[in-house]
Amino acid sequence: MTLDHTRLAPMANAIRALSMDAVQAANSGHPGMPMGMADVATVLFAQVLKFDPAAPKWPDRDRFVLSAGHGSMLIYSLLHLTGYDSPTIEDIRNFRQMGSPCAGHPENFLIPGVECTTGPLGQGLAMAVGMAMAERHLNAMFGDGLVDHKTWVIAGDGCLMEGINHEALGLAGTLKLGRLKVLWDDNRITIDGDTSLSTSEDIPARFRAAGWETLSCDGHDFADIARALAEAAASDKPTLVACRTVIGKGAPNKQGSHDVHGAPLGAEEIAAARAALGWTAAPFEIPAEILADWRSLGAKGAAARAAWEARLAADSQGAEFSRRMAGDLPAGDDVARTFAGWLDGDQNVATRKASENCLNVLAPLVPELVGGSADLTGSNNTKAKVQAPFTAADYAGSYVYYGIREFGMAAAMNGMALHGGVIPYGGTFLIFSDYCRNAIRLSALQQARVVYVLTHDSIGLGEDGPTHQPIEQVMSLRLIPNLNVFRPCDVIETAECWMLALQSPDAPSVLALSRQNLAQVRHDGEMLSARGAYRLRAASAARKVVLIATGSEVQLALQVADQLEASGIGSDVVSMPCMELFEQQDHGYKADILGGADVVRVSIEAGSTLGWERYTAGGLQIGIDRFGASAPAKDLFARFGFTADAIVPRIMGKVSS
Amino acid sequence: MTLDHTRLAPMANAIRALSMDAVQAANSGHPGMPMGMADVATVLFAQVLKFDPAAPKWPDRDRFVLSAGHGSMLIYSLLHLTGYDSPTIEDIRNFRQMGSPCAGHPENFLIPGVECTTGPLGQGLAMAVGMAMAERHLNAMFGDGLVDHKTWVIAGDGCLMEGINHEALGLAGTLKLGRLKVLWDDNRITIDGDTSLSTSEDIPARFRAAGWETLSCDGHDFADIARALAEAAASDKPTLVACRTVIGKGAPNKQGSHDVHGAPLGAEEIAAARAALGWTAAPFEIPAEILADWRSLGAKGAAARAAWEARLAADSQGAEFSRRMAGDLPAGDDVARTFAGWLDGDQNVATRKASENCLNVLAPLVPELVGGSADLTGSNNTKAKVQAPFTAADYAGSYVYYGIREFGMAAAMNGMALHGGVIPYGGTFLIFSDYCRNAIRLSALQQARVVYVLTHDSIGLGEDGPTHQPIEQVMSLRLIPNLNVFRPCDVIETAECWMLALQSPDAPSVLALSRQNLAQVRHDGEMLSARGAYRLRAASAARKVVLIATGSEVQLALQVADQLEASGIGSDVVSMPCMELFEQQDHGYKADILGGADVVRVSIEAGSTLGWERYTAGGLQIGIDRFGASAPAKDLFARFGFTADAIVPRIMGKVSS
Repeated sequence: MTLDHTRLAPMANAIRALSMDAVQAANSGHPGMPMGMADVATVLFAQVLKFDPAAPKWPDRDRFVLSAGHGSMLIYSLLHLTGYDSPTIEDIRNFRQMGSPCAGHPENFLIPGVECTTGPLGQGLAMAVGMAMAERHLNAMFGDGLVDHKTWVIAGDGCLMEGINHEALGLAGTLKLGRLKVLWDDNRITIDGDTSLSTSEDIPARFRAAGWETLSCDGHDFADIARALAEAAASDKPTLVACRTVIGKGAPNKQGSHDVHGAPLGAEEIAAARAALGWTAAPFEIPAEILADWRSLGAKGAAARAAWEARLAADSQGAEFSRRMAGDLPAGDDVARTFAGWLDGDQNVATRKASENCLNVLAPLVPELVGGSADLTGSNNTKAKVQAPFTAADYAGSYVYYGIREFGMAAAMNGMALHGGVIPYGGTFLIFSDYCRNAIRLSALQQARVVYVLTHDSIGLGEDGPTHQPIEQVMSLRLIPNLNVFRPCDVIETAECWMLALQSPDAPSVLALSRQNLAQVRHDGEMLSARGAYRLRAASAARKVVLIATGSEVQLALQVADQLEASGIGSDVVSMPCMELFEQQDHGYKADILGGADVVRVSIEAGSTLGWERYTAGGLQIGIDRFGASAPAKDLFARFGFTADAIVPRIMGKVSS
Repeated sequence: MTLDHTRLAPMANAIRALSMDAVQAANSGHPGMPMGMADVATVLFAQVLKFDPAAPKWPDRDRFVLSAGHGSMLIYSLLHLTGYDSPTIEDIRNFRQMGSPCAGHPENFLIPGVECTTGPLGQGLAMAVGMAMAERHLNAMFGDGLVDHKTWVIAGDGCLMEGINHEALGLAGTLKLGRLKVLWDDNRITIDGDTSLSTSEDIPARFRAAGWETLSCDGHDFADIARALAEAAASDKPTLVACRTVIGKGAPNKQGSHDVHGAPLGAEEIAAARAALGWTAAPFEIPAEILADWRSLGAKGAAARAAWEARLAADSQGAEFSRRMAGDLPAGDDVARTFAGWLDGDQNVATRKASENCLNVLAPLVPELVGGSADLTGSNNTKAKVQAPFTAADYAGSYVYYGIREFGMAAAMNGMALHGGVIPYGGTFLIFSDYCRNAIRLSALQQARVVYVLTHDSIGLGEDGPTHQPIEQVMSLRLIPNLNVFRPCDVIETAECWMLALQSPDAPSVLALSRQNLAQVRHDGEMLSARGAYRLRAASAARKVVLIATGSEVQLALQVADQLEASGIGSDVVSMPCMELFEQQDHGYKADILGGADVVRVSIEAGSTLGWERYTAGGLQIGIDRFGASAPAKDLFARFGFTADAIVPRIMGKVSS
């Protein structure tokens, strides 16, 4: 069914009315964007988008990403009007209030119809790139019958000014993601004023330079919008549609100005807007015939879903497809058995190499793994032997050459994880977690299973010097809620941490891995890393010292303990590959591992000491609280006091004092 | 003097020889880029760049930024060959070894001729934008006689793939920075392989879309290079020169491949390269006639400098110009006196507003302040009344509309600070420090006086919800070495923190400021914030509790203390606006403030608790270790336990236990 344009106008005004009312009631929010893009969004949902309000997680739905997330009332209006269970009108009445799923910015974990959390500008667009990648990959695996959808994005000037958008569209252009369609809210207004204050760019020309098709339309002319969206849908290139709009369209005195961007219109202007729009319904009320038109839109998607489900049931790969989309790992314990083979000999390899060894085991067994690196494949050791490149010519490949685009990669991985059907992991140097930090945070906030393989995790990387040597990165990542930061000490812990990362469906993980070789210190097959920290070696004499170390410093802690024990000072060595998991242990376990007031606790980690007092206050924190330097690793460790000879006397002073 | 091209070729080969030899000796480093860009760099230094090796800090020199910092041997070679004091040939022999100023990546704090620290890709280019901005601003203030120089950049594919480059060149295009010239090392190779693996962009088209002029040349044809650089120098637009080069040029078997990017060539290939280049000198030796040609190049700059110094001496503004370039603040205590006026009444304003009030005092008195915001001027309260916009039409303005470009802004501010003559500050929401985190780190590493005005510093921002509410940001910024993180509690502390930030010539500062109004709790004029933490109110009963709070939680700590004191529990309230400055105090002061084993110490900060155990282990850490939520601020503070009624019982439990 196609609604004619005389019926679309009141539908769009319903979005405007809800947006005005909700922002006014909350006395907080952004009416300008929902009002400006109401017409475009109405055409998108009425004529183009494939969706079924009864099944917000239907795998073959089109994805809709509101990259300009501050305009959240647009998506809340659309979901409510088209008949999704959530949000209800009551939720919208409570926009931005405690407990309402209608948060200030759309949150994927509060409303099933919200594909991803947006608000941090540019990242919605970049996540959409990841969704479009996942779609093409799964299509290559499972065929058109199961996977055949598009990803539509609404982005504002802010999204297109943020650097990440350059990374995202470069990736999309190179990968020829023809099912990615971006509707640019070209309203020429930012918070500070007219866009000419800060930019003079020819945005479509830039998109064309990256291999995109560009179109434009009058964002308030339904026929023109429909034409442009149809052309966009038909294009085999990633497509930008410049929608020329008036911000706050419908508010007669404020539209077209930055005053309407992020503040309530006020009672007077709302009254004027209602008059101008001919909108007479009470606040939060939608006239029945307009609501009926909105509610009619899901029928096409419902039919498409029914047909799709029939195909799924008939497809020999249907069960495997459903497993992957559900996020369940393959059954069986092949993986654990294979890792067990490593317990025999000593593998004194860098943990980045250990990680590669893990991937060579995991990739064939967990085919939904899609790896990659931000142009450091050989350094991050992220490519498994079985992985072919994911390219425009071969979407079946499962290894992505992301290019020098850390932020774009991280956001794309978020999009892939949220799309479902793949488990993304990607590598860069740990120091460059700084470049993608907010995307890592959004992995955590969105409860997305993304694995960050972050190598060269300390001064142990050596000669590249302070710009490349993480000091504060490990501890600062630990501060992000719902993120597991793993720093394994050897090949066995690396395998354990990989398993724990994959077994965390609702949380991202960081694997902080060494460049330099490390001694294998574990030769047992118990999954000890799951405790977060554990006693690697117990004191032989009466315990006076507990050494707590992570990663490359665990082998050093063992040497320190050797010397202390030789002096008759009983010393436990605790490996703490994951502080977050240790925090989750019960009091008894923690007390046993950490010991009481009778022991001196010492943390050893080649990074910031701030934070270690949680476990070692009153004891010692061996770390580095200044920038590194350029020199071979062994010289740096000596220079910064990371030798048993330097550490033991410091501990002796504490024990005797 | 213009050297003909037959003499330039051996000069360029001297760069190649030094680069091969140094990387080989270090068994670490990147020979590919210096060898590939040796010809271009030789023409630049021989014919175009204005420099005087005897005066590396001469204010009117051209700036040269090696944005592709991994090619550090290029700049070390250039500085040594042209006759700068540093690096010496011995320094180059010790490339990447402990104590050598020839670090893996070029560091501005180790070698005076290195304008900025590069290596984190894209940031060199973005810092160059800031240098070019500072040049135009000072030119507008002091005229062509004192300020008339260009900024030349060498950037690689990595620099142009990173998102920050989009922000940087958009800013440069909008501001029409015609003295900014970028030489793109167009070698079509990245670490992972051919650039076509990860990008298909038409880079010059993108630059043109942003208002740049684009040129190209054969990067191994001296005449063509000279033509292109002359055209670039003559253009009144920011200019990109695509220099088509062969990575590792001169290494006959490895050139043109990613194998030559980041590893020593090996003895065999070096021998082959020497044969191919006709280079017969011993390692690290430069034939006398070639060195003489290089050493002759500085003469032109020396003459220009002499003429410039004569103009400076004769200029009525010469002393003021020199003051600003030296980084000295204006003399006098006008500022302190003006702030003193605030001690009288209660100004219960948000600290972001208090900061604006400070700026209105400071901007007229400290004219070298150049402010700005990443499109949040009204929210960050960063614009002082006297500041006019800095635009292409008026470079005399001192307020920059940076657009939605946090990372680009931060890097540009680094460039401005390193250029000298201005003190940059810029605003965004604290949460978006994540977007520019590595540039903040580079401010600290480079010892650059940049002031980050980061507002909306906790859940106190309210309705915008978890994407916008900092949780871990304050603590994670504290982890960055050489960065002062200030979180003032009221209007007086805000003024103090601004003064401390300006009085730190070798360190950047973060001002974490509230969106919401805060009670004025200080009414004295002593500069207490300089201690980092101080006793705001002493216990009236015997001290049993020390409450340590920051920012918006100080007023809460006072309420908590009121209740505790009412129950007879003596409670100090300590305000800790800057943990870093407190760490620098002597033991006695710290012990006095913190108290001994007889007190319960409690930290109160609406953010991560990890880290607070440094001061309050065994006591209580009142904080937030999960993501926030969308609701009015007062509801959020109640929900997260930030009320006296919620906190007091927790402390009572500790005191009695």
